[in-house]
Amino acid sequence: MALELAETLTETLTESDVRRIVRDEVTQAFKKDPAAKRICLIASKGSLDWTYPPLILASAAAAAGMETSIFFTFYGLNIIRKGFPEKVKVSPVGNPAMPMPLPMADTFTSLPGMKAFATAQMKAKFKKYGVASVGELINVCRDSGVRLIACTMTMEVFGIKKSDFIDGVEYAGAGAYLSEARRAHITLFI
Amino acid sequence: MALELAETLTETLTESDVRRIVRDEVTQAFKKDPAAKRICLIASKGSLDWTYPPLILASAAAAAGMETSIFFTFYGLNIIRKGFPEKVKVSPVGNPAMPMPLPMADTFTSLPGMKAFATAQMKAKFKKYGVASVGELINVCRDSGVRLIACTMTMEVFGIKKSDFIDGVEYAGAGAYLSEARRAHITLFI
Amino acid sequence: MALELAETLTETLTESDVRRIVRDEVTQAFKKDPAAKRICLIASKGSLDWTYPPLILASAAAAAGMETSIFFTFYGLNIIRKGFPEKVKVSPVGNPAMPMPLPMADTFTSLPGMKAFATAQMKAKFKKYGVASVGELINVCRDSGVRLIACTMTMEVFGIKKSDFIDGVEYAGAGAYLSEARRAHITLFI
Repeated sequence: MALELAETLTETLTESDVRRIVRDEVTQAFKKDPAAKRICLIASKGSLDWTYPPLILASAAAAAGMETSIFFTFYGLNIIRKGFPEKVKVSPVGNPAMPMPLPMADTFTSLPGMKAFATAQMKAKFKKYGVASVGELINVCRDSGVRLIACTMTMEVFGIKKSDFIDGVEYAGAGAYLSEARRAHITLFI
Repeated sequence: MALELAETLTETLTESDVRRIVRDEVTQAFKKDPAAKRICLIASKGSLDWTYPPLILASAAAAAGMETSIFFTFYGLNIIRKGFPEKVKVSPVGNPAMPMPLPMADTFTSLPGMKAFATAQMKAKFKKYGVASVGELINVCRDSGVRLIACTMTMEVFGIKKSDFIDGVEYAGAGAYLSEARRAHITLFI
Repeated sequence: MALELAETLTETLTESDVRRIVRDEVTQAFKKDPAAKRICLIASKGSLDWTYPPLILASAAAAAGMETSIFFTFYGLNIIRKGFPEKVKVSPVGNPAMPMPLPMADTFTSLPGMKAFATAQMKAKFKKYGVASVGELINVCRDSGVRLIACTMTMEVFGIKKSDFIDGVEYAGAGAYLSEARRAHITLFI
């Protein structure tokens, strides 16, 4: 019995043993931090150029296995409206750093027709370099599990109906966005 | 004595007991993660439309019990200036996706008077659908404990004095913003 | 032997001892949370005014000892192009809240020459109040260890070559940005 007792006692953990185990477990836990696996984007703008950042980031995040959502609000709500990819326009006015193929004077960028021209230029550039179109990017997002959430308050204010949106859209308010985003490391307002 | 000893030994924790307890505690700790209770917004724009997102998100966060602050910097500093809610304007130029009640040509949106027209339209829409006005939203934020922080560097650069601001505003620099935001999961630049 | 045994047994930890130690360690661990030491900014705009926020925030974060990076994408890629600080322009159109020294009508802000005028005004104001110029801020960032990362996808789409950039720039895609940002509390899309 003395031997049996001795064996048991050598297993007895001291406070410093416990602290060592805890630090080890906590380090592991931080590596598995659930907030590091979630990204909650807000898409607030509706011109062609500003449509790309949320869709490209979301599709890249989903491809990396992250839980990904885009909350479409304000002008960004347009991105998930039926027929948007065909109608979307770049706005060359107010984008002085837009790397236009040809330098243009300010008066020129505000001329009628310039928006259509800039849109065609950007669409051509993205296509040429193998970047998906807006319509294709939306499909990639949906297919890879990105949650597309329409802001219900903006819908009410601007009178947009559920039937105006593409398939697969969810509906929520700012409170629902916050309750998810507060568990995510990456939160971006685009 | 043998019985007494045996009782004590059954209470002795092994390393695997300790790891079980630790995982349990760590899971609880992540649920209570203080960073999940804090939201640090930056409001950088000063036109009527871009005034709504920080104020609406902040009031929703405060209503959900989060520690909420808005750091007003750059053009956003205007939002907390005295008399701002009466003077604020929407800028229809450069917002091609602004869901205007009537479609308008680009030349039309840059005509004098269009800014006043767009502002009236937006104010009317928000009012019609029960959304608070900018002045009301600022009051809701202050009353619910949202900290309104003016960027001291922008104040210096643009020559804005403390007496230009509404009551209840705090003053801080970018460093102070960062030291709070690095303890918050939700950080948005609006 | 009975005395020796008694001593050992008094050191035996109970489950509640272990939980106390764990809570203590976890509280310490959250204070040392590595995500609280990292900031991952995205700079997406290229006009003079929107150049300041990412550079000022990054230099302030680096000064506070944080691991800091800026991912330059879209129009923001211009900021790290050779010769940018000399060529950068403010865009007064679409910034209705830009605190101009003199109130100006909308038609006036869209006149040719206004962009140069607004740029000169802003440069003068920043200089007058001791804020570094864009070129100086970029140097401060590089010298203090801020990582300047160019978005390779934008480079391809807009045909920008590595030789177009200033020294010390790194190159990465959206996926690389996400894998760092998901370990950072402060992530801002500017």
